[in-house]
Amino acid sequence: MERCNLTKTMDVIGGKWKSVALFYMLERPRRFNEIKRLMPSITQRMLTLQLRELERDGLITRTVFPEVPPRVEYALTKLGRTLEPILDLLCAWGERHSQQVFDKREERVA
Amino acid sequence: MERCNLTKTMDVIGGKWKSVALFYMLERPRRFNEIKRLMPSITQRMLTLQLRELERDGLITRTVFPEVPPRVEYALTKLGRTLEPILDLLCAWGERHSQQVFDKREERVA
Repeated sequence: MERCNLTKTMDVIGGKWKSVALFYMLERPRRFNEIKRLMPSITQRMLTLQLRELERDGLITRTVFPEVPPRVEYALTKLGRTLEPILDLLCAWGERHSQQVFDKREERVA
Repeated sequence: MERCNLTKTMDVIGGKWKSVALFYMLERPRRFNEIKRLMPSITQRMLTLQLRELERDGLITRTVFPEVPPRVEYALTKLGRTLEPILDLLCAWGERHSQQVFDKREERVA
């Protein structure tokens, strides 16, 4: 069996924050505060860091609109958009199957 | 837009190690040392921990065969098998697109 390339993908979108942020950008570009609101458990500092890495890796663009106050929008690049089928499946799996896992965890605690 | 269930999935298979270990079990059950060999950069302790969590979450089974020395095999459960399309896509994305990301990182260092 050939060495799996999955590690490379996880090196790019691993951790839960990046994939969730990318998921929200599938629909449309998002402002920083909007993403922050959608992900209440991430700190501002951590979100900034994650978005900066996604930008560095060429998955998203950061656009500053010269308004008062300045508007900053994050949007998927063409490369970022190639993740769409993965993000959709990850979301669908969570919806269909994760409850089974959490029920099992509950049982062990009970 | 509804709250995304992706976080739940990442809570179960997040981090790079779990998904890679699961990927190798797609083909057939695997022995501990075999998985360890396929993932040279993970420590024995960390792999043990990751496999224990996957077992706790009902994604894999751990079977001890009464041989000398005892053979221990890890295999996907029916629930673990539902991750197959995701693991395949993650692997395919790494193969097709990750080089773009790594080239971009190189450029910045150069």
